[in-house]
Amino acid sequence: MTELAAVKAALKTQAVETPSWAYGNSGTRFKVFAQQGVPRTPQEKLDDAAKVHEFTGVAPTVALHIPWDKVADYAALAKHAEDRGVRLGAINSNTFQDDDYRLGSICHPDAAVRRKAVDHLLECVDIMDATGSTDLKLWFADGTNYPGQDDIRARQDRLAEGLAEVYERLGEGQRMLLEYKLFEPAFYTTDVPDWGTAYAHCLKLGEKAQVVVDTGHHAPGTNIEFIVATLLREDKLGGFDFNSRFYADDDLMVGAADPFQLFRIMYEVVRGGGFTPEVAFMLDQCHNIEAKIPAIIRSVMNVQEATAKALLVDRAALAEAQAAGDVLGANAVLMDAYNTDVRPLLREVREEMGLDPDPVAAYRRSGWAERIVAERVGGEQAGWGA
Amino acid sequence: MTELAAVKAALKTQAVETPSWAYGNSGTRFKVFAQQGVPRTPQEKLDDAAKVHEFTGVAPTVALHIPWDKVADYAALAKHAEDRGVRLGAINSNTFQDDDYRLGSICHPDAAVRRKAVDHLLECVDIMDATGSTDLKLWFADGTNYPGQDDIRARQDRLAEGLAEVYERLGEGQRMLLEYKLFEPAFYTTDVPDWGTAYAHCLKLGEKAQVVVDTGHHAPGTNIEFIVATLLREDKLGGFDFNSRFYADDDLMVGAADPFQLFRIMYEVVRGGGFTPEVAFMLDQCHNIEAKIPAIIRSVMNVQEATAKALLVDRAALAEAQAAGDVLGANAVLMDAYNTDVRPLLREVREEMGLDPDPVAAYRRSGWAERIVAERVGGEQAGWGA
Amino acid sequence: MTELAAVKAALKTQAVETPSWAYGNSGTRFKVFAQQGVPRTPQEKLDDAAKVHEFTGVAPTVALHIPWDKVADYAALAKHAEDRGVRLGAINSNTFQDDDYRLGSICHPDAAVRRKAVDHLLECVDIMDATGSTDLKLWFADGTNYPGQDDIRARQDRLAEGLAEVYERLGEGQRMLLEYKLFEPAFYTTDVPDWGTAYAHCLKLGEKAQVVVDTGHHAPGTNIEFIVATLLREDKLGGFDFNSRFYADDDLMVGAADPFQLFRIMYEVVRGGGFTPEVAFMLDQCHNIEAKIPAIIRSVMNVQEATAKALLVDRAALAEAQAAGDVLGANAVLMDAYNTDVRPLLREVREEMGLDPDPVAAYRRSGWAERIVAERVGGEQAGWGA
Amino acid sequence: MTELAAVKAALKTQAVETPSWAYGNSGTRFKVFAQQGVPRTPQEKLDDAAKVHEFTGVAPTVALHIPWDKVADYAALAKHAEDRGVRLGAINSNTFQDDDYRLGSICHPDAAVRRKAVDHLLECVDIMDATGSTDLKLWFADGTNYPGQDDIRARQDRLAEGLAEVYERLGEGQRMLLEYKLFEPAFYTTDVPDWGTAYAHCLKLGEKAQVVVDTGHHAPGTNIEFIVATLLREDKLGGFDFNSRFYADDDLMVGAADPFQLFRIMYEVVRGGGFTPEVAFMLDQCHNIEAKIPAIIRSVMNVQEATAKALLVDRAALAEAQAAGDVLGANAVLMDAYNTDVRPLLREVREEMGLDPDPVAAYRRSGWAERIVAERVGGEQAGWGA
Repeated sequence: MTELAAVKAALKTQAVETPSWAYGNSGTRFKVFAQQGVPRTPQEKLDDAAKVHEFTGVAPTVALHIPWDKVADYAALAKHAEDRGVRLGAINSNTFQDDDYRLGSICHPDAAVRRKAVDHLLECVDIMDATGSTDLKLWFADGTNYPGQDDIRARQDRLAEGLAEVYERLGEGQRMLLEYKLFEPAFYTTDVPDWGTAYAHCLKLGEKAQVVVDTGHHAPGTNIEFIVATLLREDKLGGFDFNSRFYADDDLMVGAADPFQLFRIMYEVVRGGGFTPEVAFMLDQCHNIEAKIPAIIRSVMNVQEATAKALLVDRAALAEAQAAGDVLGANAVLMDAYNTDVRPLLREVREEMGLDPDPVAAYRRSGWAERIVAERVGGEQAGWGA
Repeated sequence: MTELAAVKAALKTQAVETPSWAYGNSGTRFKVFAQQGVPRTPQEKLDDAAKVHEFTGVAPTVALHIPWDKVADYAALAKHAEDRGVRLGAINSNTFQDDDYRLGSICHPDAAVRRKAVDHLLECVDIMDATGSTDLKLWFADGTNYPGQDDIRARQDRLAEGLAEVYERLGEGQRMLLEYKLFEPAFYTTDVPDWGTAYAHCLKLGEKAQVVVDTGHHAPGTNIEFIVATLLREDKLGGFDFNSRFYADDDLMVGAADPFQLFRIMYEVVRGGGFTPEVAFMLDQCHNIEAKIPAIIRSVMNVQEATAKALLVDRAALAEAQAAGDVLGANAVLMDAYNTDVRPLLREVREEMGLDPDPVAAYRRSGWAERIVAERVGGEQAGWGA
Repeated sequence: MTELAAVKAALKTQAVETPSWAYGNSGTRFKVFAQQGVPRTPQEKLDDAAKVHEFTGVAPTVALHIPWDKVADYAALAKHAEDRGVRLGAINSNTFQDDDYRLGSICHPDAAVRRKAVDHLLECVDIMDATGSTDLKLWFADGTNYPGQDDIRARQDRLAEGLAEVYERLGEGQRMLLEYKLFEPAFYTTDVPDWGTAYAHCLKLGEKAQVVVDTGHHAPGTNIEFIVATLLREDKLGGFDFNSRFYADDDLMVGAADPFQLFRIMYEVVRGGGFTPEVAFMLDQCHNIEAKIPAIIRSVMNVQEATAKALLVDRAALAEAQAAGDVLGANAVLMDAYNTDVRPLLREVREEMGLDPDPVAAYRRSGWAERIVAERVGGEQAGWGA
Repeated sequence: MTELAAVKAALKTQAVETPSWAYGNSGTRFKVFAQQGVPRTPQEKLDDAAKVHEFTGVAPTVALHIPWDKVADYAALAKHAEDRGVRLGAINSNTFQDDDYRLGSICHPDAAVRRKAVDHLLECVDIMDATGSTDLKLWFADGTNYPGQDDIRARQDRLAEGLAEVYERLGEGQRMLLEYKLFEPAFYTTDVPDWGTAYAHCLKLGEKAQVVVDTGHHAPGTNIEFIVATLLREDKLGGFDFNSRFYADDDLMVGAADPFQLFRIMYEVVRGGGFTPEVAFMLDQCHNIEAKIPAIIRSVMNVQEATAKALLVDRAALAEAQAAGDVLGANAVLMDAYNTDVRPLLREVREEMGLDPDPVAAYRRSGWAERIVAERVGGEQAGWGA
């Protein structure tokens, strides 16, 4: 197999999980702009997600958010997905939208609230059993707004205790992916603010616990690809929540703000042996002002383009220049791949997969956008709160 | 008059405007935690604001937000305020919560939306005429989320045009205060992102246009007191929106995150001749998880404490050390004032004003907190959307 | 002329000024790593700069730094440049490397130091007269390290006074380019920290005073292309100091850290009518660990590539999508240009200009690197201090 | 013992180590401003450090930097210190000022350079044996400036290997303190950029390896006290390099930029059981423009003041408010301690220790400043490079 053929083969195996909630309405604290045709049920979210997979060929699974996607019959939901050509993916917990969680969930000073939060997480594992999902994704909004508000260290103890109980409940083939975030919605401390904290907890929990890197959850100036390389070296990289940001956790389309950074991240993934099913590549974005389905298609394509460039890096030449201490030469090898226009290559890949070479155009021609606007009338649109 | 007497006299003249919306519910994009006893009407917000003034003695006016505080009869509203010992303050416009404003308001690509936004601003001036407010505070959520989404420069042209029309409408003794903000809710460009942009527009508009400094609206590392000093030097400082932040626009209680910064800002205000009624000192905060009225009382006290320290700076000694190039000596003069515990002084000031020396304790004893919880049952609580 | 022909024609007119000091040694506060073959005289710097122009065809001028490039006979220096195919460019002042400048130069509390600084600036204008340079580039290291150290506002007064005196001295066809910088070497206040401060001073000085944007001199998260668009709209953009940064003022090769940002900047330049000789495009970088001449060639090429992409934007399609409020469509038009591999186009441009299509390779083949190592033996290598 | 007596007793046990290099000249990449009277030898640095201890009573040890403080006879150096009332402290390695280290030291692509770096570290342990120092402080300038320049992960492997060899060499009662830093002098990757990376390495090395927190080495917005609390919880906090910053690694006097942050850090130290000799409290600052000895005295006092406030926190009241979820109440307890003017208390402490209550004034009166200016004539002043 030629090198280009190998790149193409790799690209055909790519899988980017899309999040059910990205198909619903979202916004900022100032305003949620409702869009027409937005899904009203978990099933309709799956219908939309299936369109993304239909046109891209590399978005075969859909992450669920509990309780937003709670249903009575998960087997039926899984069947609904399967009928449309997709599968249910990671289960995402929610311990931030109940009034009880004003001061935290699993780290709350009150044991009763902690109990409630842990019970919710255990319920999520039950749902994983029902859906066949392997990944429990945990993001905690826990933290404090004011110095002194709560005891930083005691909250870590509570966190460790809660995580341990959930970890024990994980079954064969199931794992826990722990996400970190610098700030928001808490504004002084966040109980899992950085990769180091997530890593330290996962290390103690065991090998079924791994870290998730959300690309928008870092302090300004953080070198994300360094974290990716480090977590892969430690065998603790569980996956990504992809999105992009100029300022804080902007949740823009991945690759929209800094495509070079996305390429560097994907290069470290490839270089570190992380381009495998063991690392979950998920989107976690908000399409506040743009059309949602085409934005998600575009996001999936952005990940593909960055991956293609990363796969095209001439690693032998790179290693040689690096070993020689040739700063400009080594940088040039990397930039050569980045500066390549990989869109023709990806069009070929799609055609070889039996897809339209232009997913956005194909989606637009499909009439789906018009159809959902026409059909999804009445009911309550899905959003972050429902 | 001794120096200390002068400081006390100055502190008694202080006026901090509280915002009507801070008495209502607020939150993050993740969750708004409703609190008991929150006002349901503009009148009830004024009732709460009056309590803050009753116990602090330095919060005599209340900013309104249109349309959140829209009423049929502003004279009656003003009378309601007056009966409780406070007055109506600045009128704050809202051009971000209507579906039409998805892509902006006064900078929107569609002239019809711009017209609507400008009409709202003109209506705000009508309301100023009715309330006797002198200040129109303008904050625009306008901006873009993605590179290329709209034309940066064309949006500036539209902004200039809209502002000019509103400026023309201002009456005698009325002015326009233009706020800037780095980001949020827009995540790529903001149409008035920094003081330079606000300043450039105000300069062209004329002397009735001035800049408002919101202490949470800057890039990390920005030296806010430098901006304050510069705007005072240019006679373009219209006022402040006080709050504090660790990360982005966290909207925590002013002085909670960096009390030394607040002191430095107040020092530049005093030094630059800005401690006068011509500069509006307003709070603009969100009390998402803490009790609102005592949080606002605490915030007003934080401004007082910073001001007291700023007034205590030995300016003659400071000037002498500065002129001598004595780096450590000059810094020490400033730090001496900052390190002073001014709480005893402020207790004296309050007692001389006929107030309880401990406003928070006095408020707690007053029974107001319990009363509003008991009485404000039913109806719709005020929040950012109402 | 076809559109592509127009793009090529524009690219052939491009001019990127290289700085004499980038050919000398540089480093961080921790260590300056000396390189072999580094110039020892202003003449040798020009020799190196001429090589950059010889192989790129778009680096016809060289900025000088006074006193580092002070010579007895500027006409002879100009002739030396001309003989090698380049010209002398902007004159850069230095008011930071004399012991007297410990507490500032033009803003120093001591009038005698201010006098010395202003005299140096006036001398720089004398040198402009001698070299025929049109641009006086002013960067001030002035500022303070500690709160209280000096009076912020008084320093602004001194700055204004000093600039005014220098402005008066400018002759016909000469202008003053005022640079701003957030911090370093001063760590609390910088006397010209942001574009707003530079703009306010330039506005008062008159039309011969314009602002220079150094791409590494902003707070994290600052939208530089917004500033570029705004300054062009105000007719106050004098030029650029190009470089790139991940953290602070890293002074890496332009385009190395965020090539997408460089493209967005160049797009605003083109869109705002700034791609003209009136805007000075200069490099200001440090090649601490990489070979200097090829790094500068690579930097010039990075600017070319970003410019080519900016020129390729389908502005009619962009305007249409923007006017329609098509967020994704407008973003896609911009990204189409960015994702284009313009290297083949630039190779064509070079061949049409009679140049080697690969400047770096051509430079390597030229033997210049080996020659300067062999010949430049003895003497004192040029660096930031000489 | 009353509570206040306990606070005083604790304050009398405090020990802040001062760094030998802070007594020498320092600066930025733009300029090192030499000061009169600066030490020329390690012995003279100790003489100055002894003065700091003489007047503060809490600076009993002095950190050495190798090779800057290399001497033939360390026993004699230790005796020199002892004669002046101080002791030798941590040994700081230097793997950044040799030309060989252009691309790194212990992480360099070339095994020969790595060997040299490790040998230097081993030599530092030899010196520890000679001086009786217990702490080897490791800060690596290693990193890369350009994407692709070197392999991120391979560098981690090299780092781990080098550290392991040095760790093995540590004797009884000796330990290794690993420092992290976000950036500078490397501008793309730093090989130990954050606490997580340092922690992961220390964990693998064993219990003699601990993390050092330099308060200036974080990304903007990082919550340092959270890191302190976490490292104490993990028993991996080895010590501090104190200084302060507004922007990057400004190395200003500790407590000068954000005294409230320093207080919060010291509170977590006290709360987490870290106010013991097992945690090393060291200064690492640059006094570029201010007089060095009084600046160090002032810095030591700033640490004392923050510690006093931290010790004064009413922890019972705090715990009660925290447990009750009383956000404002808990914050108020912390702020009460912070707002206390502890200078009178510290004057008492000093008097009880037989010291002058005002160390800066006592130093000024001592004539030492004048004496060293008069006596230290000729020779080469100590600086970062010597």
